[in-house]
Amino acid sequence: MTQKNSKPLGDEGPLVVVGGGQAGALMATFLAKRGHEVHIFESRPDPRLVDLDAGRSINMALATRGIVAMRELGVYDRVEPITIPMKGRMVHPEDGEVNFQPYGTSADHAIYSVGRHSLNAILLDAAEDTGNVTMAFGQRCRGVDWSRRMLVLTDYSNDEAMAEVPFDTLFGSDGANSEIRRSMQLVNGGSTSVHVLDHGYKELEIPAGPGGSFLLEPNALHIWPRGNFMLIALPNPGGTFTVTLFLPFGADDPDIGSADSFATLTDPQAVERFFAREFPDFVDLVPDLSEQFFANQTGDLATVRCSGWSHGDTGVLIGDAAHAIVPFHGQGMNLALESCRLLDRRLARYPYDVAQAFTLFEMDRKPDADAIADMALDNYIEMRSGVTDPRYLIKRELALELERRFPDRIAARYGMVMFTTMPYYEVKSRAEDQAVILDKLTAHATSLDDVDFDRAEQLVTQLGPLPVQI
Amino acid sequence: MTQKNSKPLGDEGPLVVVGGGQAGALMATFLAKRGHEVHIFESRPDPRLVDLDAGRSINMALATRGIVAMRELGVYDRVEPITIPMKGRMVHPEDGEVNFQPYGTSADHAIYSVGRHSLNAILLDAAEDTGNVTMAFGQRCRGVDWSRRMLVLTDYSNDEAMAEVPFDTLFGSDGANSEIRRSMQLVNGGSTSVHVLDHGYKELEIPAGPGGSFLLEPNALHIWPRGNFMLIALPNPGGTFTVTLFLPFGADDPDIGSADSFATLTDPQAVERFFAREFPDFVDLVPDLSEQFFANQTGDLATVRCSGWSHGDTGVLIGDAAHAIVPFHGQGMNLALESCRLLDRRLARYPYDVAQAFTLFEMDRKPDADAIADMALDNYIEMRSGVTDPRYLIKRELALELERRFPDRIAARYGMVMFTTMPYYEVKSRAEDQAVILDKLTAHATSLDDVDFDRAEQLVTQLGPLPVQI
Repeated sequence: MTQKNSKPLGDEGPLVVVGGGQAGALMATFLAKRGHEVHIFESRPDPRLVDLDAGRSINMALATRGIVAMRELGVYDRVEPITIPMKGRMVHPEDGEVNFQPYGTSADHAIYSVGRHSLNAILLDAAEDTGNVTMAFGQRCRGVDWSRRMLVLTDYSNDEAMAEVPFDTLFGSDGANSEIRRSMQLVNGGSTSVHVLDHGYKELEIPAGPGGSFLLEPNALHIWPRGNFMLIALPNPGGTFTVTLFLPFGADDPDIGSADSFATLTDPQAVERFFAREFPDFVDLVPDLSEQFFANQTGDLATVRCSGWSHGDTGVLIGDAAHAIVPFHGQGMNLALESCRLLDRRLARYPYDVAQAFTLFEMDRKPDADAIADMALDNYIEMRSGVTDPRYLIKRELALELERRFPDRIAARYGMVMFTTMPYYEVKSRAEDQAVILDKLTAHATSLDDVDFDRAEQLVTQLGPLPVQI
Repeated sequence: MTQKNSKPLGDEGPLVVVGGGQAGALMATFLAKRGHEVHIFESRPDPRLVDLDAGRSINMALATRGIVAMRELGVYDRVEPITIPMKGRMVHPEDGEVNFQPYGTSADHAIYSVGRHSLNAILLDAAEDTGNVTMAFGQRCRGVDWSRRMLVLTDYSNDEAMAEVPFDTLFGSDGANSEIRRSMQLVNGGSTSVHVLDHGYKELEIPAGPGGSFLLEPNALHIWPRGNFMLIALPNPGGTFTVTLFLPFGADDPDIGSADSFATLTDPQAVERFFAREFPDFVDLVPDLSEQFFANQTGDLATVRCSGWSHGDTGVLIGDAAHAIVPFHGQGMNLALESCRLLDRRLARYPYDVAQAFTLFEMDRKPDADAIADMALDNYIEMRSGVTDPRYLIKRELALELERRFPDRIAARYGMVMFTTMPYYEVKSRAEDQAVILDKLTAHATSLDDVDFDRAEQLVTQLGPLPVQI
C-alpha cells in the first residue's frame, strides 16, 4: 500500500474556507500560521461592520477545549477581556431559596460567557492579522465541482453575480445546514443524519440595571429547572443577561395538550401567566416580557451526525458542518474549535499526504463528536430536572467523596467535558464505568456511612488511570 | 457507526508479550507503567544469565528515536553509561587518507554504539522493576487460538511441555519471522512480503589493544566504502570493534562470477587476498581474520513489510514482527522503539477502545515503516559508494549551504532520520522535494558561484516548514 496518490497541502493554489464563523476563522488562522494562503468566503455581512451585539446579544459558554485551541494560536489574549467568568450554577428552584453550586474548587473550574458576534469579530481580525488570510462577505456557496476544484458562489455584495473560485483544498465550515457537506456527499458516499429535538428554544433578555449594573449575580450560569423545561441566563458585558427558554414544541404531541409547551403559549396573557407561575423572580426583571417573546423566533435544536467528512485531498468538513450538537452542555463551539486544533495537528503530521490527514482526522474525531452529541442530549435532562431522588443524591455525594479520595482515578463527567481536553468518547465511556461503580457501592446504602470504602478502593483501582488529555 | 464493539485494555486478564527483545521489553514497560499486569514469554534463555557480550559482541546504533522512547519511561539513564557516542563517519577510502565526516555541528548530532545483549538486559530489568511485569524464558510460541484468547507454548525449560496461556491482549514482538504474525494472518486477512537482499553480511571483531585501548578512533562509525560492497566497524566498551562485511552473495548471479562475493571467498587464501587488497589497514588489526571469517555464519538481510498488524482487540504486532528493515540506516531498533512509544500513546488516547487504537496505530505507522524500509535500502548504496560524480558533489555542497542559510526549511535526510522524530514517511517525501530543488538549482552550475540564490530562496520558501516531530 503506497501513499503516493496524495499531495502536500496548498501546492496547487490557495486554500478556501467556506463560512467565516468561529470554526472557519480559527481554521484559517491555523492554516495561515503554517504559511498557507487562505481565502474565506462568508454568506452573511462582515460582523465587524454590523453592531449586532448592541442589539440582541447571543452568547455562548467558552470552556477549556475552546480556550486551549485559541491559546495555541496566541489568540486567547484578545478574547479574554470580553469574557465573563461563570464559576458555578445559580439554581432558581420552584420552591425554596436560590442556591449556588460551584463547578469546582479551583479558579480553573470556570466557564466563560462570551458574545457570539464579538468573538467572531476578534477571530476574523486575528485571521487577517496573520497577513495570509483574505475574506469576502455576502458570498453564498451554491455548489462545488470537486474534479475541477472549483467553488461556485453567488455574490450578494455585487448584484448577485455568480462566480467560480479555484481552490487547492476546501474547508467547509458553513454550519449545520452545510452546502459543502451536501456537495461533498454527492461524490464521496458519505451520509448525514439530522435529529431534531421535540423541544425548541426562545431567546429573551434581562435588561441592565441602573448604571449598567447586573440584576442577577453575574459570575454564574443561572438555571430555573422545571422538570420538563427550563430557563437559563448568561451574563453579558454591559449588565444584560441573555436568557433562553427551552420548552417542548408540543403541537405534534396529543399527549402534551394540557402540559406547558410552545403550542400553548400563543397570546400575551398565556405567556405572562406561564412565566409568572414558573419563574416569578425572573418576571420581575423583564418588563417587556411578552413583547420580547413574540418578537423573537422560536428556534429548533438539531443534532447532525455525518460520515464522510472529506473527499480525497480536495476538501474537509469542520465545525457544525461535520458535527452539530444541542447546546445543553455548552460544547458546540468548544467541540468545533478543538476539532480545528486537532485537524491542524493532523495536517502537520502529514504535510505530504492531505488525504491521509483527513481520513485519520475523521477516524479519531467522529467517535468524539458522536459522544459529545449524546452527552449534550443527556445534559438537558440533568439540567432541567430538579432531582430529588434519594438514590441519585447519595450517588452524587459518593462521587464527590471518591473524587476527593482518588483525584487521579475519579472525575465527574461534567468536569472532564468542560475543564479538560480528554477525548469526549473516552470521557463518556469512563463516566459509564464510574456510574457502574457508584451503583454497586450504593446498592444497599442510605448514607455514606453504609458505603464499603475498602471495596470502593478496589473498584477504583481496577478502573485504571483517567483518559489522557489530547 | 458506533465503537461499542470494543473494550478497555486488560479488563479480561493479563497482557502477554511474546518476545523479550528490545521492543518486547520496552512495550512491556510502557504497559506496566499504565498499571497493567504483563507477562513476557521469550524463546531464548535469559540474556542476563548468559554473558553473551563477553563472547562475540553485536552492537547497534542507537539514535534519537530510540533514545526519546526510552527517555519517556525514564529508562535511558540506565542505558547511557554503556553507550559510546559516534560523532561522525570515519571513512577509509580505497586511495587516500582516512577522513572524518562529522554528523553535524552540535553534540546532539551523534549516534551511540550499544551492545545488543547489554541493552536487552537493561530493558528487561527496567520492565521487572515496574513491579507489574513477570517473564519466562525458553518458551517458544507454537500458535494462538484468537477466539479463546489462548497462546500455545512449548516450555524448553521444563522438558518441552506444552502449555496454554490465557491472555487479554497479545503483543507479538517475536521478530522478523514472527509466529504471532503467521497465526494472526490466518484469521485477519493480512499479508506479508519478505524481500531478501542479494547481499549478505559477516560479523568480525577487531580485538582491543594493550590495556583495553582502541586500535581505531572510538568516537566514530568506521566505513570502508568499496562501490559494490563495504566494511563497517562500531566501537564496544572494552576496546573491541564489531565489524561487519556487507558483500553480494554472488552464487545465484552468473554476471557476478568474476566479481567479489561471498561465493568467491571459499578458502582462507581467498579471504586473506580479498581483505589485503581491499582493506589493508583493517587486516593489520585482526591477526585471526580467516579463522573468524569461517567460524561466523554469513547472514542474510531481509525487509519484511506486512499489513494487518492487529486482530480486533485481541493482538497487535510490534517491532520486527510488524516491520523488519535492513541495517544500513541503523534504524531497525530505533524504528521498533519509536513504534512502542507511538502505540502506547494510541492506547492512552483510546483507553476504552483497543481495536480502534490498534487500527489507527497501523494507519499512522505503516507508511512510516515502509518509508524507512526504502530509505534503509537506499542508504546501502550511499554508504558503500565512494561518490566522486561532480554533479553529486555540487549538490551536496549546495545542500549544506542551503541548510546553513535556511535552517528551518532545509534539512539533510540523514539528519531528519537520525536526529529527529519527524515521521519517516514525511522525511522521505521532504527529501524528495529537496532533491528536486537541488536538481533545478544545479542544472547548469559547476560551482556554488553559478547558483541563483534568489531563485533558491523562492523555491525553499515554497517548500513550507519542515515536518513536525512526533
